[in-house]
Amino acid sequence: MFKFNVIQRDDATGARRGRLELARGVVETPVFMAVGTQATVKGLTPQQLRSAGVSMVLGNTYHLMLRPGSSQIQELGGLPKFMAWDGPMLTDSGGFQVFSLAHLSKKTEEGVEFRSHIDGSLQWLDPERSMQVQHELGADIAMAFDDCTPYPCSEEDTKKSMDLTHRWADRSLAAFKGGAQALFGIVQGGMYESLREESVAALTAKPFHGFAIGGLSVGEPKHLMRKILKHTAPLLPEDKPRYLMGVGTPLDLVTAVSQGVDMFDCVMPTRNGRNGQAFTSQGKINIKQAVFRSDETALDPSCSCYSCQNYSRAYLHHLFKANEMLCPVLMSLHNLAYYQSLMAEMRESILNGGFSDLLERITSIYAAEEIGEPTEAHACP
Amino acid sequence: MFKFNVIQRDDATGARRGRLELARGVVETPVFMAVGTQATVKGLTPQQLRSAGVSMVLGNTYHLMLRPGSSQIQELGGLPKFMAWDGPMLTDSGGFQVFSLAHLSKKTEEGVEFRSHIDGSLQWLDPERSMQVQHELGADIAMAFDDCTPYPCSEEDTKKSMDLTHRWADRSLAAFKGGAQALFGIVQGGMYESLREESVAALTAKPFHGFAIGGLSVGEPKHLMRKILKHTAPLLPEDKPRYLMGVGTPLDLVTAVSQGVDMFDCVMPTRNGRNGQAFTSQGKINIKQAVFRSDETALDPSCSCYSCQNYSRAYLHHLFKANEMLCPVLMSLHNLAYYQSLMAEMRESILNGGFSDLLERITSIYAAEEIGEPTEAHACP
Repeated sequence: MFKFNVIQRDDATGARRGRLELARGVVETPVFMAVGTQATVKGLTPQQLRSAGVSMVLGNTYHLMLRPGSSQIQELGGLPKFMAWDGPMLTDSGGFQVFSLAHLSKKTEEGVEFRSHIDGSLQWLDPERSMQVQHELGADIAMAFDDCTPYPCSEEDTKKSMDLTHRWADRSLAAFKGGAQALFGIVQGGMYESLREESVAALTAKPFHGFAIGGLSVGEPKHLMRKILKHTAPLLPEDKPRYLMGVGTPLDLVTAVSQGVDMFDCVMPTRNGRNGQAFTSQGKINIKQAVFRSDETALDPSCSCYSCQNYSRAYLHHLFKANEMLCPVLMSLHNLAYYQSLMAEMRESILNGGFSDLLERITSIYAAEEIGEPTEAHACP
Repeated sequence: MFKFNVIQRDDATGARRGRLELARGVVETPVFMAVGTQATVKGLTPQQLRSAGVSMVLGNTYHLMLRPGSSQIQELGGLPKFMAWDGPMLTDSGGFQVFSLAHLSKKTEEGVEFRSHIDGSLQWLDPERSMQVQHELGADIAMAFDDCTPYPCSEEDTKKSMDLTHRWADRSLAAFKGGAQALFGIVQGGMYESLREESVAALTAKPFHGFAIGGLSVGEPKHLMRKILKHTAPLLPEDKPRYLMGVGTPLDLVTAVSQGVDMFDCVMPTRNGRNGQAFTSQGKINIKQAVFRSDETALDPSCSCYSCQNYSRAYLHHLFKANEMLCPVLMSLHNLAYYQSLMAEMRESILNGGFSDLLERITSIYAAEEIGEPTEAHACP
């Protein structure tokens, strides 16, 4: 089951309002997926995710194949049932994380040999194994097994890696079991526009259900990420969903949507939340700052999430100082709710012609904060 | 606002089914209060507490006076509002924890000088200060400031400590501000029946709203705790609530109810839950055991809590192994739900004449597990 429709296009930008029909439900796009690395969005129940507006969750193939193991999860009814998430899911291919997290990884044409970061055991991942693992996990969307270059990386090495990604894309397609699952290809090509063009041409010639833009947000400067994104996104087919992997800040999301991206995932709302950082309609704040000790206002006074409806900044500041588990729970919940409300605003504004205003507003709130900031090198090889 | 009625007495035991009317709501007794030490029941939202059946929450004076400070909490509307718990609350006096947690505490007739376990700052607590702090926290029930003996302790030292508790009880009453708050006295006397009698006589002569049995579950053998409890509880006035502090296991609760206790608090459901231990209708299980790796059943198949309705033991085992925050959340949630359902069963069975059967059933499930186990010396001086 896979269907994608663009419902409305923004006049002034490349933004699109769409709808994704998947085996486990309908997803309105642009969509931000919550990251549930180890079969859980850290600290939150599916009930809380729903209350924050989350409609789709991502699981990580690399982590789950190592623990508890994908065949184990399959025996227990698949990943969605295992983690009690009753909505659509996507799994990544493991390609990105095997390089960034595993020990002693060794890449060949065939695949990647590595040692588990958990117990040091020798493991193997290749396109066929990735397809098998993702089939066992049973998400609605699986990702082709790809190779990802670090930043910086020479054009020659980037091309070699990209060509390998293309061959692995063919092997992924050949090994893909289909059924209720859809399969996306991943465009690579690093920071080189000509390679991105080549990658888009090669991948869109293959029968993928959608396309991801990989290899961004690996530590490169923001302006470079945006330049490559701006160049790459419009080259992708109009009638298939476009997924920008591992990105990003609220400004990243709005900018990418303006360039025609439909899907996102990122650990920032949950990871930054755990570290005390909140994304709000007025910009970022860090709850550990002493200024919040007596602040009776909500984290974000214009937010309707459970945290903001029930708690003061003073309370969250106290929880942070006291190292209480409820702090990351409430901060993650709010950040996901903020991200989801931003996506909902984008979807609404594309329909009613207000997207450019929204882009301008989010830029005015968040642009100053990112001056000189590189992209988050969150899991970069 | 304080009213207590015994609705029904069990024929065969000392168990009572009662109702406590407090400023912030009505509480059906026997009741088990969830422990919210630092203005949060660890990891759980009030929404989750309600879903587990929690009707009343305890806050710790010692912790809250040190961080964030009781005047700070008062300025933010009091403890219930601060932590968004919209039901009845009780605060302890700080007496127990100042000896068990503070550094370099020095006790005199006047009170206790100690250093904060958080920042080493010099602090002072005495009956007047405890009343002031508890007034600022603003719970429905405050506790008199008491002195608590360790186990073992000589009769002479126990008597000295008890006499001090009685003098501090008078000072607590004198300093108590009243208003919407009720005040309970705390019976001491250690493991000596004659001292317990003396303490009950001294305290019940004072105008407290209810009485706690303190100084138990400080590391003494279970049979000794039960002996002292059995001797002490029936001496307390019939028309006032009886609160057994810091106790205990499911079997402790049922046994104490059979001896006429109405109120309980204990960290066991949450603390043990964080360590992977679940209380179930079939006894205790530890989710970290390998036998649960592929177990598709719920933690407790006869439990209706969110954890048991949505997750398998295999999933919780995975979360525990992966050190995921959702594990303590779901385990704590289940354990509190089990405790609450046990209390609800007790209340129901006292009304319909089935309490003795329930006592027998819980004894058959839990008695074998506690052979040779001392009481939990959870915060013993």
